[in-house]
Amino acid sequence: MMARLGALLLACLAAISAAVAQPADPLPSWNDGAAKSAIADFVARVTRDGGPDFVAPAERIAVFDNDGTLWCEQPIYFQAAFGLDEVKAKAPHHPEWKRQQPFKAFLANDKAALAAQGEKGLLALLAVSYSGMTTEAYAKSVGDWLAQAKHPRFNRPYNELIYQPMLELLAYLRANGFKTFIVSGGGVEFMRVWTEKAYGIPPEQVVGSSDVTQFKIGADGRPVLMKLPKVAFIDDGPGKPSGINRFIGRRPILAFGNSDGDLQMLQWTAAGPGARFLGIVHHTDAAREYAYDRHSRIGKLDKAWDEAVQRGWTVVDMAKDWKTVFAFEHGSTGAPQ
Amino acid sequence: MMARLGALLLACLAAISAAVAQPADPLPSWNDGAAKSAIADFVARVTRDGGPDFVAPAERIAVFDNDGTLWCEQPIYFQAAFGLDEVKAKAPHHPEWKRQQPFKAFLANDKAALAAQGEKGLLALLAVSYSGMTTEAYAKSVGDWLAQAKHPRFNRPYNELIYQPMLELLAYLRANGFKTFIVSGGGVEFMRVWTEKAYGIPPEQVVGSSDVTQFKIGADGRPVLMKLPKVAFIDDGPGKPSGINRFIGRRPILAFGNSDGDLQMLQWTAAGPGARFLGIVHHTDAAREYAYDRHSRIGKLDKAWDEAVQRGWTVVDMAKDWKTVFAFEHGSTGAPQ
Repeated sequence: MMARLGALLLACLAAISAAVAQPADPLPSWNDGAAKSAIADFVARVTRDGGPDFVAPAERIAVFDNDGTLWCEQPIYFQAAFGLDEVKAKAPHHPEWKRQQPFKAFLANDKAALAAQGEKGLLALLAVSYSGMTTEAYAKSVGDWLAQAKHPRFNRPYNELIYQPMLELLAYLRANGFKTFIVSGGGVEFMRVWTEKAYGIPPEQVVGSSDVTQFKIGADGRPVLMKLPKVAFIDDGPGKPSGINRFIGRRPILAFGNSDGDLQMLQWTAAGPGARFLGIVHHTDAAREYAYDRHSRIGKLDKAWDEAVQRGWTVVDMAKDWKTVFAFEHGSTGAPQ
Repeated sequence: MMARLGALLLACLAAISAAVAQPADPLPSWNDGAAKSAIADFVARVTRDGGPDFVAPAERIAVFDNDGTLWCEQPIYFQAAFGLDEVKAKAPHHPEWKRQQPFKAFLANDKAALAAQGEKGLLALLAVSYSGMTTEAYAKSVGDWLAQAKHPRFNRPYNELIYQPMLELLAYLRANGFKTFIVSGGGVEFMRVWTEKAYGIPPEQVVGSSDVTQFKIGADGRPVLMKLPKVAFIDDGPGKPSGINRFIGRRPILAFGNSDGDLQMLQWTAAGPGARFLGIVHHTDAAREYAYDRHSRIGKLDKAWDEAVQRGWTVVDMAKDWKTVFAFEHGSTGAPQ
């Protein structure tokens, strides 16, 4: 008992010493400017006990898109890169693919024939990476891929392509009593393999698109969930408020996105009573990352940008507002190869 | 600053004094016996740092069925009682229902004609309570109903029909670092209106059945989610492991249910590695609550009971294991009327 009391006393002394010390900048990778100030002002307002904008901790729900908001989404969504790599890896076991579209076109790198297969063709390719396997086998294949695949430009594992300023923002919000969620069009099971380690966001706070799974008792008597090639829910565009409603059940007070696919999530968040924060990452930095917006095939930012300007939402200019984009860049140029 | 340090010092003294005091029984409504011991043993094993069965707090996921496990489900599911009350309340505005089945049969209390409409008829009646309205209007109607409706036998608001021993178990688990979830066949939006206050379980930890919602910008420019008469997901039976996988994304280490609809959730939880706790509430107490199992129309406990006995899961005998069933019973007999 005395040792326990001693430890408690030490913890108390540490807490008192922390209370006297000056806090460090919680957002060191953000340049001083309107975006950084808007974030700090919002957090100060909603956490000031007794203030007019105070929000109880349980209601401090913050939602973040993933692709293009927390990590890079170029030159193709990383989940698509995974799916296509899986097709290549499995091709030796599927000689029939040499005669079957869309596999034939993809494996022959015949871009015209592949384009002719359209979105349906792409989805058929990607389904190879998940359908007809257990949820456990799928999670393992995602983990194995992440451990060896490299981004074509940065030559780094894909899960190093996460934005350092957004990591700091997530930690800053959590330190201020927020509960942080991902609300992404990406597959929920693809994300959960790595999001807890990467972002400190546990699986139960990841909302995403999902496929139907089927419960089965295996031959060994052990139950499994089989992933079927059937979409259960698309968590994108107008699906995002539905996903927030179904999975979280509370309206967020802060939402961050980067594309038109996030517009309805931002509108839904903005429509609640009291203080709100709406943020958009604008990709303006071709040197350190990518520059794209209104005319991009991936992560198109057009209507949401107009609405952000009109309504005074915070548009983060990656080139100007972020001192650092990726944690690794101080040791590497990340220049196009 | 001095006032803040003073408060910190006081908090430290309180913590030291609490560390010296003996802990009270965390499960006072449970009689001593095998069920209570099994719970305490399991919690001690998974929380003993360095022990062979230690589970990190982030992995301490506990899932609970709701109807018949956390609150009463007789004589009909309370959500069905709500739906039928809504039909009655709305009937004056729908004169056409007097000529339309299943409304005609229900409003005339014609049980034979209603039975002839089958489950489809019941679902059509219940759809009146939610479809074609916004999620906000629906939540308000549930709250309004709970504030005035009374259980036919106990003559108490439905949300007083919650099991005191299970409330203590939820609190005990949370005090030991568990994250508690509801995984119920009930509607997720029906439950979230009252589950946080009743059980201390926040909306984002409630998994349930759900309908499709549609995002719309209203005439006033404000976005709404409309509830459509279309089922998105049924979180019952084999749907429960799928729901756990989709919403929580981690396999629980503790699961509690009461009927065959919970069997797959129990099997899924049992199949993980390491220490597991599987519990079933057996309704054996006609005097204080209800007695039913293998042949019940609601909450049938048959296959799950056999499997529980065979595999040594904990079957709680409500009459023997629970000192108190409902918190109110010390002031009221709760006898059948």
